[in-house]
Amino acid sequence: MNWWTIDETHDPARKSWVEGAKGHRDFPVQNLPFGVFSLAEGAPTRIGVAIADHVLDLGALATAGLVPAHLSDICRDATMARLMGLSPQDRSALRRSLSDVLCDEARRSEITPMLHPAQDCMLHLPTRIGDYTDFYVGIHHANNIGRQFRPDNPLLPNYKHVPIGYHGRSSSIRPSGVPVVRPTGQRKPPEADAPIFAPTARLDYELEMGVWIGRGNDLGMPVPISDAAQHIAGFCLLNDWSARDLQAWEYQPLGPFLAKNFHSTISPWVVTPEALAPFRMAQPLRPEGDPQPLPYLLDADDQAHGALGVMLQVHLTTQAMRDAGLEPHRLSHGPASNMYWTVNQMVAHHASNGCNLTPGDLLGTGTISAPDREGFGSLMEISQGGKMPLTLPTGETRSFLEDGDEISITATASAQGYVSIGFGECRARIGQAIDKAISSAP
Amino acid sequence: MNWWTIDETHDPARKSWVEGAKGHRDFPVQNLPFGVFSLAEGAPTRIGVAIADHVLDLGALATAGLVPAHLSDICRDATMARLMGLSPQDRSALRRSLSDVLCDEARRSEITPMLHPAQDCMLHLPTRIGDYTDFYVGIHHANNIGRQFRPDNPLLPNYKHVPIGYHGRSSSIRPSGVPVVRPTGQRKPPEADAPIFAPTARLDYELEMGVWIGRGNDLGMPVPISDAAQHIAGFCLLNDWSARDLQAWEYQPLGPFLAKNFHSTISPWVVTPEALAPFRMAQPLRPEGDPQPLPYLLDADDQAHGALGVMLQVHLTTQAMRDAGLEPHRLSHGPASNMYWTVNQMVAHHASNGCNLTPGDLLGTGTISAPDREGFGSLMEISQGGKMPLTLPTGETRSFLEDGDEISITATASAQGYVSIGFGECRARIGQAIDKAISSAP
Repeated sequence: MNWWTIDETHDPARKSWVEGAKGHRDFPVQNLPFGVFSLAEGAPTRIGVAIADHVLDLGALATAGLVPAHLSDICRDATMARLMGLSPQDRSALRRSLSDVLCDEARRSEITPMLHPAQDCMLHLPTRIGDYTDFYVGIHHANNIGRQFRPDNPLLPNYKHVPIGYHGRSSSIRPSGVPVVRPTGQRKPPEADAPIFAPTARLDYELEMGVWIGRGNDLGMPVPISDAAQHIAGFCLLNDWSARDLQAWEYQPLGPFLAKNFHSTISPWVVTPEALAPFRMAQPLRPEGDPQPLPYLLDADDQAHGALGVMLQVHLTTQAMRDAGLEPHRLSHGPASNMYWTVNQMVAHHASNGCNLTPGDLLGTGTISAPDREGFGSLMEISQGGKMPLTLPTGETRSFLEDGDEISITATASAQGYVSIGFGECRARIGQAIDKAISSAP
Repeated sequence: MNWWTIDETHDPARKSWVEGAKGHRDFPVQNLPFGVFSLAEGAPTRIGVAIADHVLDLGALATAGLVPAHLSDICRDATMARLMGLSPQDRSALRRSLSDVLCDEARRSEITPMLHPAQDCMLHLPTRIGDYTDFYVGIHHANNIGRQFRPDNPLLPNYKHVPIGYHGRSSSIRPSGVPVVRPTGQRKPPEADAPIFAPTARLDYELEMGVWIGRGNDLGMPVPISDAAQHIAGFCLLNDWSARDLQAWEYQPLGPFLAKNFHSTISPWVVTPEALAPFRMAQPLRPEGDPQPLPYLLDADDQAHGALGVMLQVHLTTQAMRDAGLEPHRLSHGPASNMYWTVNQMVAHHASNGCNLTPGDLLGTGTISAPDREGFGSLMEISQGGKMPLTLPTGETRSFLEDGDEISITATASAQGYVSIGFGECRARIGQAIDKAISSAP
């Protein structure tokens, strides 16, 4: 069975009895992402399914005997730890059962009590994240940033051979909505003799997609590229907040550390590979003359269908804009297909040395950018490293983020003949730096 | 209460009734490290305490009412997840109760059934490791490696200001004894036009110490340097296996990734800060003229006592040596005080931007090396990047590790007037690369 197959759940004629599902921007019945919610601060968490502006309590559905019997226990868990590790076959079967009950008018009165208005639900991380790895597959970002340092030779020699990645921090990943404390750290102003320790003055966002790992692999056993898709549990949106001044001073020779690990924000809904099946597309970014991927990264089906037809958007709202009642200002929009490597290539590369992936690991794509201003994926690119501040509708300017600024990432997957689906929101607001004496030195 | 205080548990006159405890190289009654063990493959795990050549079942001791009552549940856990998070005060109290029962001859017959011969015990990771961070505080290693690339200027400008660190992979950390599969990966031979995908030809070890995080800090809230020690649950030995050829090709611009994340080996016993109290010493490596640490990294007590009087040793055994019945060959020995930054500085720096540390996180020091050959902490240094192969007693030579080679790291903490203690063993053998078709490409 090919779990990427487009089945009856994608039928545009399929109609849910849930109010608002038809035409819902993010969560029509063709999507059905999984997440973890609670109904009050400190209340027990449950697994839920997003449908229109409601959250379906998956545990209640399981208790009513309306999911495949062998998955009933897993659906009643407090987190998605076990659900993440389901085989694609089981996850597809669960998805079909959800689609069926939500489209069966005869189930309406039975299921309605299991639906909670989304506005009453607190959303949490889907599971305790194991390891978090961030890639660098947005070739335009690598070019745009590289050009600031090496105008004639922006891409390093390994870029078109290796899906570059590095390990990030999993403990500081938070769901959409949790405020970001402006980090303090070491930075060396260009003309200073010595570094200072102060709140970052160059706080940036990075537009990324996240990939949840499903089934793992044993330590020492690589994942063939042809099997890679079977190890993916779903997708989310990711904002890899970055302190550019800390990064410039600390990152040699071992890479970014405190410049990145103070907070990362993800959208809380896990959009399954099954839901995204209609939106697959050819990998568009390896023009004639580029090196052929090494065999462990090369799969014909992946080259033909391994990219995703997803349009990403980033909006900024400042405190002054909120005060003036202005709408969020769109900073950029661009396609997720602006990735030089596919998610299957990311997975196969990560495991190629025997590194064991585990259910609930998260991979980031790295900043997804574009060759032109409209699609730039960070302020570092938009403001040209601070040299070209952006002017907002209020007349405010921004080179980097100020306290009170809120960044929201959204995305839509669409394809001819199919109902578009979204990812929900990946949003957070910048709060001021902690004013705390962090030294007892005399 | 100062939890680093030397108390009655360190009294050299204190004598345990457990056979072999007096004069035991690693585990006299003055040590009492915690670990997780089982008595058979797949059997339930329990928390144990190492004493001489035995493991004391802490759960059994708790059930008998012989630990502080409020810690009884935690002592009966299957892993050290909760024990890791104990306050230093509680951990000290537990340690004193253990020392007391193991030194009280009247308890001998009651406790003896709770002791298992170490040779019957399988040792596991103490807990599921949260995030793993590797530092780079071995200044001689940074110098020795830097000199291979930049003879006149081996240290980068940030080194003496920033405790350089980066995130590593937690899922592939294994306890002593688990064989290492030689990793396969991309590397670019110097004269080749393009990279190849093949087993590493430059497999190396790295001599490090590990630091277990105890109590965590909330996201956004730094840990003052004066409080850093209270966040440390213990210490271990760490071998950060490295594939030097993969590393050279992949590491720009984001740091090491697949060159390091295929396997790391740790000694399974958690040697507590309390056990190491007598072996604290002044931080010796910041000579006149070096920059003063920024205030968030500066603490008078830490400068005076923040280093550890621990001597580290690395031994190599090849298959030919085993066949010939030869003893392991000592590759190097040197003091752990060859670190430019203290462990408290590592902790304070890590959390200085608000990054939340969590109980069961692991920090590595980075390779601890020395200015001279006797104390080099990796084959990269010993063989001068492969230019000066080492000759072994069998007549074999080594630039890097071959299949069948076994590396063992051991260490001894000692100080005038106190009983020396050790860490147990951090040992693993290299196995051959997995011969697996990892591509389905035509």
